[in-house]
Order: sequence, then C-alpha cells, then structure tokens
Amino acid sequence: MEHLEGRQSILAALRARQRRFEVILLRQGAHEEKFADVLAAAAELGVPVRRADGRELDEMAHGATHGGMLAVVSAKPRMSSGDLLHLIDKLREPALLLLLEGIEDARNLGFTLRSAEALGAHAVMIKKHLWDFDPVEIARPASGAYERMPLVQIEDVGALEQLRGRGVRLMGCLAGVRTSIYQADLASPVIIAIGGEKRGLSGAVRSICDGFMTIPTQPGAASLSLSHAASIVMAEARRQRESK
Amino acid sequence: MEHLEGRQSILAALRARQRRFEVILLRQGAHEEKFADVLAAAAELGVPVRRADGRELDEMAHGATHGGMLAVVSAKPRMSSGDLLHLIDKLREPALLLLLEGIEDARNLGFTLRSAEALGAHAVMIKKHLWDFDPVEIARPASGAYERMPLVQIEDVGALEQLRGRGVRLMGCLAGVRTSIYQADLASPVIIAIGGEKRGLSGAVRSICDGFMTIPTQPGAASLSLSHAASIVMAEARRQRESK
Repeated sequence: MEHLEGRQSILAALRARQRRFEVILLRQGAHEEKFADVLAAAAELGVPVRRADGRELDEMAHGATHGGMLAVVSAKPRMSSGDLLHLIDKLREPALLLLLEGIEDARNLGFTLRSAEALGAHAVMIKKHLWDFDPVEIARPASGAYERMPLVQIEDVGALEQLRGRGVRLMGCLAGVRTSIYQADLASPVIIAIGGEKRGLSGAVRSICDGFMTIPTQPGAASLSLSHAASIVMAEARRQRESK
Repeated sequence: MEHLEGRQSILAALRARQRRFEVILLRQGAHEEKFADVLAAAAELGVPVRRADGRELDEMAHGATHGGMLAVVSAKPRMSSGDLLHLIDKLREPALLLLLEGIEDARNLGFTLRSAEALGAHAVMIKKHLWDFDPVEIARPASGAYERMPLVQIEDVGALEQLRGRGVRLMGCLAGVRTSIYQADLASPVIIAIGGEKRGLSGAVRSICDGFMTIPTQPGAASLSLSHAASIVMAEARRQRESK
C-alpha cells in the first residue's frame, strides 16, 4: 500500500478512480467544511473516513504538507504498452507522448507530469527503474496530474517500435542539432524523447529516433533542466496544433 | 558571509567575479585533477585553498552534494534599480526581463534563474522578502546561473514605472485572458510578470500592466508551476525574437 498526503492529492485520486482506497485519515479537530469536497467524494465511493491523532498523521507522513488529511491506498496502476496502443487508436487528435530518460528526482518527475497534463500530452513513458521514486514526492508537485496522467513503464525500445509502426514519430531532443523545435513537425503524432541532464538520451533510444531537434538557448548558459525542457517542447507542440 | 557548495557553483562564482572569496575548502584526500579548473581560477584571483577534514565540510554544508568542495564567500550582490536602467540603456537588443511575485521555494527560484539565463533574459526582478531564501538552495538547481544572472530587488512598483518610461512594456501572465502568449508582442522590450501559484500577480503590479496574456493549457488540468510557466513564456519571447 501507498499513502497520499493532503486534500488536493486525495481528491484528485478519488476523482481519477484508479486506486483502491483503504481509508482516509482526518486529523482530530480539523474542520470538516475545509474537506467537504473530499468527504463527499469519499462517501460516494464508500471509502471509510477515520479521525486520527495529529501525531499519528505526522508520523505516517513523508512531508509536513499533509494539512490534516492522509489516505491509505493501492499503488497507482501503470499503463501497459498494450493499453497505450489502445489509447492511441482511440484518440481523435494526433498523439502527443513524452518519453523521459534519466530523471533523477521525484519532484522533477512530478513537475513534468503536471506540465504534460497542462499542455495536452496523452501519456508519459518512463524507464522501469524510475518507479523507485517515493510516490508522495512525485504527487505533491504534480498537483493532481500524477493521479490523472497515464504513466507507461517502458522495458525496452519494443514499445517505441510498435508506436512508430502506427505512424507516431519518435523525435529526440539533443543539444546543438541543426533543427529547432520550431522547425520540427510536432503537430503530427509524435513521441518527444528527452534525456536526463547528465547523460542525455541513451544510445538505444537515439538509434531508433526518426529525427532530432533542439531548444535554442544562449551560448555559454547552463542547459535547461529536464522538466523545463520538456515543458517548452510540449508547449511548442500545443502551439503548432492550435495554429493548424 | 555565505558559502557555496560543489565544484560547479564555485567555478561559476569565480568566473562571474561578483563575490569576494575568503577561502575555498577542499576535502582531504580529494583528487586535485577533478578540481583543476576551480583551482586554476582560484590561483588566478589569489583565493586561498585549504584542505579540510571531510566531517568539517559535511557539517558546514547544507546538502549532501558538495562533492568535497566548499567556499566561504560574500553574498551575491543585488543589482539596484538604477543599475538595471543602465544595463537596459546599454543593450543592443530589446530588453527581456522577468518579474516574479510569490515564489515560495528556493529550488523553484533556482530553476527559474537557470531557464531565464538559457532563454536570454537580461535580468530577473523579485520582491524584497524573497531574499530570505537559502542561497545554497537557490544556487544548486540554478547550475551556475545564480552567479551570472543579474537579480534586482524590487521594493515597490516605482522601478517598474521607470522601465515603462523607457519603453519597456509590462506584460502580466494571467490564466484565462483572451490574448495568448503567441499573440502578444514579446519581441519588443518587455517585462514578463508572473505571479505565484497561490495568489497570482498582486493588485499593485496588475494595476500598471500594459497588457495581459495567458499560456494556453488544457481545460481541467492543474495550472503550470511558476518556473515552468516562466520558461514557456521566455522561450516564446526568444522564438519571436529569432524569427524577426
């Protein structure tokens, strides 16, 4: 079991209906009005709510931001590659997928999921070992997007090949290549692949990319962080799609 | 005095030449070759380097990422509003400034400075109370940009009025307004104003904005974080400037 901390994460998870809720713990003395939306959603789904001692919540919580509410839940289900293909087939708009390699930090993953949702990505693919992150640390900066955004665990490049077989192009972000993200076609079905700040994209992913593109930046400046680079490219994809 | 942690922050500060260095501490047993660039820059500036016990470094450090090197330095100087006007007058390209309100987190400020530098901003303006942040926590995600990017402390909107008097327009980011960042003119001299996630832009800043603009996002999604919103708008400004 995992737990969720704070009203916003719990409400998003209740509404997304992807997790099984064991119980919601509400701090003794907390005002119910402040949690009215969560309590209504919990009642509708038959999730028990128990009053708990403030110290009990503090001891269970990973951070100090639970604000008096914590939930014990099943892990967020991961979408399989097969389900991702079904999702793509059902879309009424060109697929916009994000592939992340080498994320080192749960917070950055959380922020990236939040941007991905806000900018219209349909799913985020990450490498298997990234699931070692603390889900509470992903969920907090994701501001609900962690509950809603389909996350696909990629074991190898086979899943990417299957997507390419359906006409989804794999575009890798690389520093210094000639084509900018503004010249690349991001309005057609696309997987945007972005690597970690230390090593960039892996050779395995590079070897099957349909093309590469770069975010123009100032000479001599530090590189953009992964989550900020991803946000800029997804915003550009959204711009291209809107202007069509 | 402040301190800097890690090779990258220290090298950036030595090269930026904005701080006075008291001493650089290098862990006993650390290989000098790994720090060759820092040691060369320190020698050039006459900064003493002292070998220190690993435990001494760990106790001084705020984080675990100093990697065997720490420096005792004067605080990063803040650019005055007057100096900012001089900087603007000397620019050979249209000013691109970022005004941040309500940043709650040193890490997010650090990431924002990093994106601002990468995307060509000339200075970042923030409200006075934001200087309460731990500089080490700003510097680490900024990846050197904290040392290089001019930071201007804004006491009130007077400095903004002075900039507007020189033809720099103040554009506020607001959710839901009709004009998108793609319709706004960001190629002319501009201050991009972005507010915190909780309260947005203050009334004082809104009241003197020349216009408002929004980043188009998906209905129902969580809002973008401040640093990601700032990065997307600055990237759009850079795109508009490059395409001219």
